[in-house]
Amino acid sequence: MSWLENIKWNDDGLIPVITQEFNSKQVLTLAWMNKESLALSVETGHAVYWSRSRQKLWHKGEESGNQQIIKSIRLDCDNDALLIEVEQKGGIACHTGRHHCFYQQLQDGQWTTTEKVLKDPKEMYG
Amino acid sequence: MSWLENIKWNDDGLIPVITQEFNSKQVLTLAWMNKESLALSVETGHAVYWSRSRQKLWHKGEESGNQQIIKSIRLDCDNDALLIEVEQKGGIACHTGRHHCFYQQLQDGQWTTTEKVLKDPKEMYG
Repeated sequence: MSWLENIKWNDDGLIPVITQEFNSKQVLTLAWMNKESLALSVETGHAVYWSRSRQKLWHKGEESGNQQIIKSIRLDCDNDALLIEVEQKGGIACHTGRHHCFYQQLQDGQWTTTEKVLKDPKEMYG
Repeated sequence: MSWLENIKWNDDGLIPVITQEFNSKQVLTLAWMNKESLALSVETGHAVYWSRSRQKLWHKGEESGNQQIIKSIRLDCDNDALLIEVEQKGGIACHTGRHHCFYQQLQDGQWTTTEKVLKDPKEMYG
């Protein structure tokens, strides 16, 4: 697919992907895709990432049920970053059970947790 | 500063930074910081990145005047991505003269330009 050829993959064959909630505009996660996972995301309409820690395809929500339905896919001016808008199933994007991953805010020289846990991760991943 | 020690820098000593406009919630850019640029950002209240192409500190807006005033700094669950909210001076974050960098949208298997140029880059950097 020729549109895949426009992308500048990094030395590991990956591109960073900002995932933003379509309705709230909340930034949920920063994750990574390789060519295969991006092609699968477009084909299925569900976000599929590349897990750098597990070194395998990561079908978001396959265990937790918290899938992401893709609404749009955008590429930046340097062709080396993606922004996708999604509908977040279950309202939980973070593996800690929070709505999003950016819950540590710098306040007075300290990282302060600002978001509550909505679901026990043990329940999510059983 | 001990809060800097919480961050997981990549092999190049960098962390990806999502920059989101405070009022509109539009994602403006994905850029990178090293320890020095993040410390400077916090100290000055203005976004300072690390330019990977020029291999030097990049005081956002120093040439164009389009500075970014930092409203909040957040770190993700893995300590390896930042999300900052900013007030974007001049309303232009992209070096192409557009509001933001994510102006190529995937539509029917093609990258389609969706945002107009607000200012001629020659005027911005001339």
